Amino acid sequence: MTDLQRRLFDELETLVLIDPHTHINPHAPASRTLADILGYHYYTELAHSSGAAKVHLDEAGIGPKERVGRIVESLEHLGNTIQVSWLLEMAREFFGFEHEAITSQNWEGLYDAAVRRMAHPDWESTVLEKSRLEKVFLTNEFDDPLEGFDTERYVPCLRTDDLVFKLHEPQVRERLAKATGIDGGGRRAVREAIGRLFDRFVKRGARACAISLPPWFSPHHVGDQEADEALAEAYSGGASASGGLQLSRWVFWTLAEFCVEHRLPFDLMIGVNRRVYENGVYQGQDLFDMRVSLIQYKDLFNAFPQVTFPVSVLGHTSNQELVSYAWIFPNVATSGHWWYSNIPTYIELDTRARLEAVPRNKQIGYYSDMYKLEFALPKFRMYRRVLAKVLAEDFVIGRGWTETQALALGRQVLRGNVERIFRV
Amino acid sequence: MTDLQRRLFDELETLVLIDPHTHINPHAPASRTLADILGYHYYTELAHSSGAAKVHLDEAGIGPKERVGRIVESLEHLGNTIQVSWLLEMAREFFGFEHEAITSQNWEGLYDAAVRRMAHPDWESTVLEKSRLEKVFLTNEFDDPLEGFDTERYVPCLRTDDLVFKLHEPQVRERLAKATGIDGGGRRAVREAIGRLFDRFVKRGARACAISLPPWFSPHHVGDQEADEALAEAYSGGASASGGLQLSRWVFWTLAEFCVEHRLPFDLMIGVNRRVYENGVYQGQDLFDMRVSLIQYKDLFNAFPQVTFPVSVLGHTSNQELVSYAWIFPNVATSGHWWYSNIPTYIELDTRARLEAVPRNKQIGYYSDMYKLEFALPKFRMYRRVLAKVLAEDFVIGRGWTETQALALGRQVLRGNVERIFRV
Amino acid sequence: MTDLQRRLFDELETLVLIDPHTHINPHAPASRTLADILGYHYYTELAHSSGAAKVHLDEAGIGPKERVGRIVESLEHLGNTIQVSWLLEMAREFFGFEHEAITSQNWEGLYDAAVRRMAHPDWESTVLEKSRLEKVFLTNEFDDPLEGFDTERYVPCLRTDDLVFKLHEPQVRERLAKATGIDGGGRRAVREAIGRLFDRFVKRGARACAISLPPWFSPHHVGDQEADEALAEAYSGGASASGGLQLSRWVFWTLAEFCVEHRLPFDLMIGVNRRVYENGVYQGQDLFDMRVSLIQYKDLFNAFPQVTFPVSVLGHTSNQELVSYAWIFPNVATSGHWWYSNIPTYIELDTRARLEAVPRNKQIGYYSDMYKLEFALPKFRMYRRVLAKVLAEDFVIGRGWTETQALALGRQVLRGNVERIFRV
Repeated sequence: MTDLQRRLFDELETLVLIDPHTHINPHAPASRTLADILGYHYYTELAHSSGAAKVHLDEAGIGPKERVGRIVESLEHLGNTIQVSWLLEMAREFFGFEHEAITSQNWEGLYDAAVRRMAHPDWESTVLEKSRLEKVFLTNEFDDPLEGFDTERYVPCLRTDDLVFKLHEPQVRERLAKATGIDGGGRRAVREAIGRLFDRFVKRGARACAISLPPWFSPHHVGDQEADEALAEAYSGGASASGGLQLSRWVFWTLAEFCVEHRLPFDLMIGVNRRVYENGVYQGQDLFDMRVSLIQYKDLFNAFPQVTFPVSVLGHTSNQELVSYAWIFPNVATSGHWWYSNIPTYIELDTRARLEAVPRNKQIGYYSDMYKLEFALPKFRMYRRVLAKVLAEDFVIGRGWTETQALALGRQVLRGNVERIFRV
Repeated sequence: MTDLQRRLFDELETLVLIDPHTHINPHAPASRTLADILGYHYYTELAHSSGAAKVHLDEAGIGPKERVGRIVESLEHLGNTIQVSWLLEMAREFFGFEHEAITSQNWEGLYDAAVRRMAHPDWESTVLEKSRLEKVFLTNEFDDPLEGFDTERYVPCLRTDDLVFKLHEPQVRERLAKATGIDGGGRRAVREAIGRLFDRFVKRGARACAISLPPWFSPHHVGDQEADEALAEAYSGGASASGGLQLSRWVFWTLAEFCVEHRLPFDLMIGVNRRVYENGVYQGQDLFDMRVSLIQYKDLFNAFPQVTFPVSVLGHTSNQELVSYAWIFPNVATSGHWWYSNIPTYIELDTRARLEAVPRNKQIGYYSDMYKLEFALPKFRMYRRVLAKVLAEDFVIGRGWTETQALALGRQVLRGNVERIFRV
Repeated sequence: MTDLQRRLFDELETLVLIDPHTHINPHAPASRTLADILGYHYYTELAHSSGAAKVHLDEAGIGPKERVGRIVESLEHLGNTIQVSWLLEMAREFFGFEHEAITSQNWEGLYDAAVRRMAHPDWESTVLEKSRLEKVFLTNEFDDPLEGFDTERYVPCLRTDDLVFKLHEPQVRERLAKATGIDGGGRRAVREAIGRLFDRFVKRGARACAISLPPWFSPHHVGDQEADEALAEAYSGGASASGGLQLSRWVFWTLAEFCVEHRLPFDLMIGVNRRVYENGVYQGQDLFDMRVSLIQYKDLFNAFPQVTFPVSVLGHTSNQELVSYAWIFPNVATSGHWWYSNIPTYIELDTRARLEAVPRNKQIGYYSDMYKLEFALPKFRMYRRVLAKVLAEDFVIGRGWTETQALALGRQVLRGNVERIFRV
């Protein structure tokens, strides 16, 4: 880091943030042992990829310490990855770890130190404070009761993958009936049921509707009759490919309509193929097909000018389309650096292009996507490093901006736009 | 910028250029007010994208100053974009603007200063001279009379989008009949009409045939009978999808044949989808689908070895194909950095790859694509900065070239190849 | 280069390597004249691309010196290319060439000096030693007798393009029959024949099965009956598109089954379209279509967990998929920088992403793909420069690694993984 980058980075580090997309369980937001951290799919899937047997990593009945020990065996093959650099950063910042690497010789001390610190009753607050996190957006299944937690701190978001892609499954229909008290499969009934979900979520402070989408999906308006037929088929246990697609499209479109009604942004996370590696570890099975285009969302973006769509793309090769669509469509915003694109090489290029061509009020710089609170610190720090570099090189040096100007831009993409876009 | 980059940049800045692709109106090449500059679709579309209503920006009947004032309201959201950096550079270089940003507090002074300078009778020459522009290529509709301007300075180019994609529209057929005096819809008649267009353009000094192409288009030879059927359909008011496609292919192929006859390069600008955002501002509606490949042009490149095809690609993800096709096909040249790829992040990567793998005599470094002359200065300067950086890092430092060698390469891609390829 | 990069580079330069993919002819591995070097398709295709007529370059009956002289005429247009920088590096390192460029004025001296040095009986060993090459993998046609060379130094690899994509051609079937002594076209017979090839190759020390694949190919398991039909069609001289595809898939799948049996890695080189430029010079006709996805290999990667697939992708735009698939699938390894992606711009970005996200034990850093031994030196050196840069910037500076740690990572991707993955 140059001195300039360091100064910008240090200033960005002081910002208190709202994390606009995570998988935090608000009833157990922080880790209890290192197993909660190393159980994050990144570590199990990388350990498996590097050679560890799935049964060894996933074995039922072993305790958390044993589980950590087994993953640690693979770390020698993973030390180069950015994910393991997050692990080291957590170990150092939260647990005072001082070695160069986590190895079979030193992990037990780290494990025990972590257990002790995590046992403190204020561990959750400690992590939030140290990570400068004020609010954390959740990912809630549609039938999540949303009870028993502080929705000011943990902001609900309605995740809709099951509704859009699995309504033909009896269990999903049952969950919907149970969550809403509406049992019928007619178009009006299903629409009303979905409306009740929105009512409940919005009452509990939900700030977004969200969904992840496969590369082959393209939303379009579905006429009433087609929707009736697709619903009838699904509710009678049928599942033709074409009927399923029309059903998905109809539900999706209906969600967008409720987003208008409730003034909710609709987070689109575009590009994931599920279960590509069928024998992968838990959550380590999904991949993608880069052959996807935002042109598939043309109808949607045109039909819902009132809805803001924060769009995440799984592939770095989709970033230029995202930049261009956000440059043209008022209702398309760029959102974070998702999953396989969440590594510094791609974050840097994607951040550069976005800052050069998308209006500054439409860029959501980053979200952590974390499952446990401890991850916010290293992940946002990685992003802040890249952001400081881009601000330094492209704006302060490249365009002669003052550091004050550059930092204002940094603050806006890191915090200001989250507040404005999600009205939080 | 390092000292080395600065030295190279300063030398590149002294070059007098030929701009090989613009949308200049030769009857009104320079701006009369700032509205001509801010009316460039980049500013209206970005203002709209950042939140300004289309009716506010496009309202009929408001004067140029009012129009500029309305766009200026949005600049606070756009200061990060490279497009606004061009605006600032124009304001500083041409009108002595000295503030950090154009705001609602200071824009009127700038507006008035610009009006005064632009009112000078030699404003056009002043801009050309200050921008070191010797010749400017135009984009002329096929029925442009090409009269009333100096074709040595403003070089005609035959733009053929309407012929290829809209000949089924009665108005286009009428324009063709009127422009050529040939009214029939038979294959020979249409071919002859197209031939007359080429004759007229070439007589008036045209130096290229040009077209922009959607990602789904793939040119192929069309047999006489199929062409007859497609023409008959179009001229009788029909418009089937397959007939329309065959007609487009036949016209396209015919254009390439006339390029052989007249030794004209055929500029291909590949990848734009028109009217994706239907309610966008004027010229702010087009986007793209990255799923396009130059393999779609295989037949064309093989069939016309005598025609040079300067190829522009809309997507940065298409650049490696462009590099590779230009590396293999003698008749494929790389051409500029188009539209959504015309931002420094992508220009730098694309320039790097081209300079590393494409013969140096086949690279057209840059064109401005401008609508008003004032834009050449900041746009070419942006390119020169990137070029100086790449020459410094990859050639002088990376390969031990002398600065003299590096500058010779820079001159060739900026000017020499334009002269050679377009025989100008 | 910074001092840090220089130190890392110098250390990487001392490594003795195994080159895991080349096209070396073990009976004539080194060049005899400069024509062997300039005959490498890069130079003839670039010369042709820059304007030299194919007949001028390919003319039969001219001697090697005349041939070199003709290619040299084009070098003025190619001096910017990385390929010509390899040529200069060979000329300097091997033949003491001291000029800035190879020109029509100085090439003859270079030619004569090269002839003299190449005439030394120990030229082959000199080149290997100077290039620090210990072993060189070959690309052997399935009917290569594999006799008359030292298989410890020149390691056989079974290249299978013809088997998979040309078994419907009588000559290929005849070659298979001749090579195996099995003449029948029944499923069992062909399977047995393929088995014999593997037996012979493995006995002669083969370390990999390898194939290059077009972008449209997607391997799947083919049922016995379908395979029988496809084989019957092919062996009776038929060649329907669907039958041909099924045959290709069946042969491909059978190869993977034998890779299991013989514990051979299966090199997949994905993405090349053959003969796109039909009138190109020898080996300068192939290009690609970036619209390819590793999702096409989903079935294969799932079905053969025991086989390691070192995957090369032709397109830089495929690199993120490669990174992601290697991050998830234990049996997918990243392999080198192939052909149109083998230029520093793309090598740097691709190396960065791989080192950040793929387990370090699954990365094969580089192979030369060379036809003559002299190329290993400049090509590996180019890679080492990039690797030193990435190790310096991303690991030593970016993550605070020691130089010792960084060099260990460099050694592993340059040499260690080749040993482990190919068991050599």
